[in-house]
Amino acid sequence: MLESNQDAYGHLIWDYFKKGSGPEIVERDDGLLDPSDQLPAYYFAQHDKWAEYERRAMRFVKGRVLDVGCGAGRVALYLQMKGLKVLGIDISPLALRVCRLRGLRNCRLLPATQVDRLTDKFDTVLMFGNNFGLFGSYKQGRAMLRKMDGITTKNARIVAASLDPYKTNDRAHLAYQRMNRHRGRMSGQVRIRVRYRTYMTPWFDYLLVSKKEMQRLISGTGWCIERFLDSKGPAYIAVIRKRT
Amino acid sequence: MLESNQDAYGHLIWDYFKKGSGPEIVERDDGLLDPSDQLPAYYFAQHDKWAEYERRAMRFVKGRVLDVGCGAGRVALYLQMKGLKVLGIDISPLALRVCRLRGLRNCRLLPATQVDRLTDKFDTVLMFGNNFGLFGSYKQGRAMLRKMDGITTKNARIVAASLDPYKTNDRAHLAYQRMNRHRGRMSGQVRIRVRYRTYMTPWFDYLLVSKKEMQRLISGTGWCIERFLDSKGPAYIAVIRKRT
Repeated sequence: MLESNQDAYGHLIWDYFKKGSGPEIVERDDGLLDPSDQLPAYYFAQHDKWAEYERRAMRFVKGRVLDVGCGAGRVALYLQMKGLKVLGIDISPLALRVCRLRGLRNCRLLPATQVDRLTDKFDTVLMFGNNFGLFGSYKQGRAMLRKMDGITTKNARIVAASLDPYKTNDRAHLAYQRMNRHRGRMSGQVRIRVRYRTYMTPWFDYLLVSKKEMQRLISGTGWCIERFLDSKGPAYIAVIRKRT
Repeated sequence: MLESNQDAYGHLIWDYFKKGSGPEIVERDDGLLDPSDQLPAYYFAQHDKWAEYERRAMRFVKGRVLDVGCGAGRVALYLQMKGLKVLGIDISPLALRVCRLRGLRNCRLLPATQVDRLTDKFDTVLMFGNNFGLFGSYKQGRAMLRKMDGITTKNARIVAASLDPYKTNDRAHLAYQRMNRHRGRMSGQVRIRVRYRTYMTPWFDYLLVSKKEMQRLISGTGWCIERFLDSKGPAYIAVIRKRT
């Protein structure tokens, strides 16, 4: 869980909620600063403003839903409004405060790595907004998938968004991927921190994968790919179901 | 002068010139990241888009002009178009390249601290876009003012933009000012670097002063305040003339 001076993401969300500040700035461990021109606005986007492939993914969301890294509640609030029972989890206390103020009934401060502490059984695990990245690494991802097996029902799905890191011509990104492979990490295993004003999160690993890499990571964990939903760019959503 | 991997400002200007990227991000040594929602667009703004107090300042600009920290050439190009003889100086090679491509006839890679290397005599020294900050500190500012005395004509003026650091309610800024006074620096002597993608300038001091502080800094250097031009906010322009 993030201390207040670390909760850059939460403060960003909070300030945007209160007065429309921004942008989100992600710093990578090669020094790259990447300010988003869309965030945090997109964290608050109404359903009709979502990307089309995200809206399409909603029909794979059923029953009790766990929204992992729920942020400002963009997806959780939509599903709650649709009548689903949703629990949002996040490590940002301030982001959760915003969720509650916006009307999300169930949310809880919990890292994605500790979902096995939940006692409910979920029909859908959501990792939206690129949050497949929260798997962090090949090894940690596989461990987390096994934990998710334990907190889900027999026909459960994981609906997870990622980004193919190879679909870029950006030389800084390609050099970073080479460096990653050189140090024995996956190409898209980016070490980043979120910064906002004087707030900065600790460094953490966020994992971007191609579809092939995702398939390899999932294989043997009790889950398999049901289908992919493509965006117009390198982003995509995987519908992952329990192997029966 | 900045090496290519340090020329964050130049790369920002260059990319904006080529493809409209941004924003400029300034990092302060307390960890504050300050992304501007206006820059770099404002570095390219046409005269009719300038702030009103900046346009008003133009009538104090005469004769041969030295534009200190000319950036993308916003002011220098306007004055050149008006028929004045302008020399722009900057420490960013890429910013100067953009100036040349935009049509600025005279510009040169030279730090503001080394204006005494110029052999011409100028009637006006311009420090626009907050560039009074390039004086850096009380001591360095006074030394630079004496150097500017040597490269200017008898009735010369310095037209310099600053920002009153005390006109803020921002707690991070007020805490930073307290820390500065505690370590024996002027309240508004911010230690910053400009970052853009993986580029980052070295840390440098940039000086923000109240009008009173400016008057104190200038006193005894051969210069005096002729008048102040106010913006609607904490920014202002000082018209400084030679003491006769």
